[in-house]
Amino acid sequence: MPAPAPASPAPPRFARVALIGRHGDPGIIEPLDRIAGFLRRRGHTVALDAETARFVGAQDAPVLSDEALRGATDLAIVLGGDGTMLSVARTLAPHGVPLIGVNLGRLGFLTDIPMAEVELTLGAMLDGRHVEERRTLITATVLRGDGTRAEALALNEVVVNRGGLGSMIECVVEIDGRFVYAMRADGVIVATPTGSTAYALSTGGPIIAQAVPAFALVPVAPHALTHRPIAVPDSATIAISVSRGRDAAVHCDGQAHFDLAEGDRVSMQRAPHTARFLHPEQYDYFAMLRQKLHWSETPERLNPGGTPR
Amino acid sequence: MPAPAPASPAPPRFARVALIGRHGDPGIIEPLDRIAGFLRRRGHTVALDAETARFVGAQDAPVLSDEALRGATDLAIVLGGDGTMLSVARTLAPHGVPLIGVNLGRLGFLTDIPMAEVELTLGAMLDGRHVEERRTLITATVLRGDGTRAEALALNEVVVNRGGLGSMIECVVEIDGRFVYAMRADGVIVATPTGSTAYALSTGGPIIAQAVPAFALVPVAPHALTHRPIAVPDSATIAISVSRGRDAAVHCDGQAHFDLAEGDRVSMQRAPHTARFLHPEQYDYFAMLRQKLHWSETPERLNPGGTPR
Amino acid sequence: MPAPAPASPAPPRFARVALIGRHGDPGIIEPLDRIAGFLRRRGHTVALDAETARFVGAQDAPVLSDEALRGATDLAIVLGGDGTMLSVARTLAPHGVPLIGVNLGRLGFLTDIPMAEVELTLGAMLDGRHVEERRTLITATVLRGDGTRAEALALNEVVVNRGGLGSMIECVVEIDGRFVYAMRADGVIVATPTGSTAYALSTGGPIIAQAVPAFALVPVAPHALTHRPIAVPDSATIAISVSRGRDAAVHCDGQAHFDLAEGDRVSMQRAPHTARFLHPEQYDYFAMLRQKLHWSETPERLNPGGTPR
Amino acid sequence: MPAPAPASPAPPRFARVALIGRHGDPGIIEPLDRIAGFLRRRGHTVALDAETARFVGAQDAPVLSDEALRGATDLAIVLGGDGTMLSVARTLAPHGVPLIGVNLGRLGFLTDIPMAEVELTLGAMLDGRHVEERRTLITATVLRGDGTRAEALALNEVVVNRGGLGSMIECVVEIDGRFVYAMRADGVIVATPTGSTAYALSTGGPIIAQAVPAFALVPVAPHALTHRPIAVPDSATIAISVSRGRDAAVHCDGQAHFDLAEGDRVSMQRAPHTARFLHPEQYDYFAMLRQKLHWSETPERLNPGGTPR
Repeated sequence: MPAPAPASPAPPRFARVALIGRHGDPGIIEPLDRIAGFLRRRGHTVALDAETARFVGAQDAPVLSDEALRGATDLAIVLGGDGTMLSVARTLAPHGVPLIGVNLGRLGFLTDIPMAEVELTLGAMLDGRHVEERRTLITATVLRGDGTRAEALALNEVVVNRGGLGSMIECVVEIDGRFVYAMRADGVIVATPTGSTAYALSTGGPIIAQAVPAFALVPVAPHALTHRPIAVPDSATIAISVSRGRDAAVHCDGQAHFDLAEGDRVSMQRAPHTARFLHPEQYDYFAMLRQKLHWSETPERLNPGGTPR
Repeated sequence: MPAPAPASPAPPRFARVALIGRHGDPGIIEPLDRIAGFLRRRGHTVALDAETARFVGAQDAPVLSDEALRGATDLAIVLGGDGTMLSVARTLAPHGVPLIGVNLGRLGFLTDIPMAEVELTLGAMLDGRHVEERRTLITATVLRGDGTRAEALALNEVVVNRGGLGSMIECVVEIDGRFVYAMRADGVIVATPTGSTAYALSTGGPIIAQAVPAFALVPVAPHALTHRPIAVPDSATIAISVSRGRDAAVHCDGQAHFDLAEGDRVSMQRAPHTARFLHPEQYDYFAMLRQKLHWSETPERLNPGGTPR
Repeated sequence: MPAPAPASPAPPRFARVALIGRHGDPGIIEPLDRIAGFLRRRGHTVALDAETARFVGAQDAPVLSDEALRGATDLAIVLGGDGTMLSVARTLAPHGVPLIGVNLGRLGFLTDIPMAEVELTLGAMLDGRHVEERRTLITATVLRGDGTRAEALALNEVVVNRGGLGSMIECVVEIDGRFVYAMRADGVIVATPTGSTAYALSTGGPIIAQAVPAFALVPVAPHALTHRPIAVPDSATIAISVSRGRDAAVHCDGQAHFDLAEGDRVSMQRAPHTARFLHPEQYDYFAMLRQKLHWSETPERLNPGGTPR
Repeated sequence: MPAPAPASPAPPRFARVALIGRHGDPGIIEPLDRIAGFLRRRGHTVALDAETARFVGAQDAPVLSDEALRGATDLAIVLGGDGTMLSVARTLAPHGVPLIGVNLGRLGFLTDIPMAEVELTLGAMLDGRHVEERRTLITATVLRGDGTRAEALALNEVVVNRGGLGSMIECVVEIDGRFVYAMRADGVIVATPTGSTAYALSTGGPIIAQAVPAFALVPVAPHALTHRPIAVPDSATIAISVSRGRDAAVHCDGQAHFDLAEGDRVSMQRAPHTARFLHPEQYDYFAMLRQKLHWSETPERLNPGGTPR
């Protein structure tokens, strides 16, 4: 009996990989090429999204339309900073495509793999030695006084705030249909755990660990001094209405915004889909925070007999 | 044919009620008497705890030992402030006795029924028109360098902090066995949602809504300026070790404390039992916060053309 | 010898009084009329500024152009809120006209005389029983990249901040020509002692008592967590340059603003003139703060045995 | 004609230098020896204070009693950290002895000369190329209910706070005899500009630039959420009375403390003498702050299209 023909090798995990680079950054061309070569040598097919391809040239990789990208991709590898990762995550989250973030030099909150050791780390992850984290997104629905609606996704935060005229807005916050407070302020942030280490942190919000199913509701420069950040269950619907404000707007991840008129209402809920982030096996959320926020590994020594600091 | 003997009336819900008053406050005698009368007229049996009885006199009510109180009580009504409620809740939580808090004039975070309308409100609640809230407690285990252990419960918070000598402590925080940070500070607070509106709020911690299953880990006067409050899942074990500190101590609800030596470790977990709080049907957590924290019901008017404030 | 002809009575102090009301507020008509009558009965001449007159009607009072107002007025009485007072103070400060602020119901930081007792209080003040406070203003000079300049006054604060696009600005702060820091943030505030209780307070700035010759330099939502408010001598020149920011602007008292382009620079100095505020003899700055900020007169009682709050 | 006898060289500036090292730190022996040799070669006489000598051995240097030190010294050079400098400054300020602070590795707020280049920097300073900064101290007078008094100096801050029992204190703050507020809190800090970057900064206080003649009055964990740090003129007398507090204490620079009983009062004023700090000519206060607080020299780049951070 003849020997069976040698089987073609089984396709690798994550057979179809999309590479997405920070738009407009010439620094991504070489790293992108390096990762593409690495993936092809391992037997993955590599595609680029249209925008990245337009910028870096196709590099022999098929170029996928956004639609194709969503449907025909097993993994997206993002090169750039947290801003790029946010944008890609909002696009791909509804399609369940997992994401890996590669930074080009500086550790990001979302892009945790340094380019310097990308082959080693990616190799292990593509072999299955990874952990998956599912990150909550917010669906924001803007209900205008004129009856129109607009909808947007946010992975970090939704912000309702004043515009450039420099005067506070007045807004009313409700949770699950119950009035919480009326407030004059620069604005209000509703942040996910992911966003709790971004803009919300700059305005005095708490860090919400990834495993806590909550949003942070954070006032920005509130007129009344007794307003404080609140952690609200992420199963709640949070609504913010602008009762007064000549040039209010709503912002999603600082990347999309809508103008708001007095009487407009922004309603926020946990999105039905999550963003799937893959990390190396040894990923440690608090270690990442420690490094990003410069917390010390070992306590500094006190000066004997000295006042702190 | 003789008429049947009249059936003895069915016992009321919460047949056996314990009344517990703020110790040492002469102002509770009259209100306590008034509530006791009200309950007896409705057919409840009324008992006092030993400490309250010693202070106000038995008032024809049986006096229960702490042990009897725990075992033979369907409901405890607490008269006083939040401090009294904290103390009773820690005692009764392990025995599943529900609690109602009556304040003697000033709304508390935990004692939400004003004495002025106590019969009306209590009447409805005892008829079943109430909502139940289960509040998380923390079990703190102190592991001393010499091998001894101590354990205590907290409903508000556990605080590890410096004592009276005025110098910072150095401590190490771990979550689920993983190192989070080393820090020099006045102290660290681990607060429940209940405690998030108490001491933790004064030190910059967030409000954690009751429905969020999280603890707030709040640094007190940290030497390094990048430390921030963190909301941690309440399924986690948080451990704080004192690496340096001449007179550190651990405090539970500000009511019990243990001295700590360098090398001691305090391990905190969600307690297996919750405290059962009963509220009137119309209870609204955020309305209570709004009243306690003086948030406004309606936005103050802006001065036309004026700078805020 | 014939008796001497009766001397015409000496003119009162503050012979020529200008009344200035909050523009567009119909509620000022009656109070304005009441004060005008009171003043005329005391022998003062009463004038209105053109804008107030246009709104309320001339009420038999001469209407002064802005120029006349500045030159021919011994005292300006302002009816309205702090916003109106800010605007009038900036206009009249360079001309040395003293100001009295009357509020229409709610105590202001700047308008301390309640309408309810206006005759009594004003009467005493016009008789000389007043204290004078001289408040520092800031001159802000905007130096554009194209060589143009603009200048504006602020009594509360100068703010350099982002506009409505929602992204942070990057700016560089210098003091007396020396580099202090580069920062990404929503903005930076330079506040006078007067402004330290306004917008700057909402963003975490300190209260600067009137007698302290300092400005508060307050970052708004700084990206780096180690930025803190700084009290800077008011003899210093503070310069803020926008190194990056698509829609930055500079605001004076929230009432005037200029758009800023990247490279623009805002230079701030103590203005050569101060605003002269007159207060009743018993005026107490800290009592006013206490009332406005709801500080307690007497400590609340601790619950015996209870956790704070 | 005989040649004239060679004139003995003129004594150097700062002829008599005292060297004072951090007590109990063996790491100071070699640096101290190195500086002593350098000074002797330049013709200075070198003395040690008794405590330093006891620890490091006399090293051929005369040992001065504290009294001699104060009277017979033209300059004190302090080796160690800010704690040592604080202690020496309090001792020598009343005697007008100028101080130079040398750090043993890590830049201090007060010890700005690195040991690595000590000869170069000291050489220039001893030749007159230095700037002098006069730092304000606080005299704290504790007036006990029993009529006794105690007095202490602070260069950083005076703190009135709770002790180890874990419950807040209640205190009353007055400025120049006028009531400011009553407050429940962990404590209150009165900090000099020097101390504004120490403990007060950890509790939310502002940085007070050296040239601002003010104290920072900073509440520590105030129960009421509207208390804020206040910059108070340093010509004022600030008094803090403890109206309630079982184990309150007052601390000066974290190095001396007195227990306080209810009713005790701590009165604070600018001390009549200042501490004289000498710095290298190129000393820049804000550059030092920038380095200590990790402010960035150049703004970090924004991720194009990205959310801040």
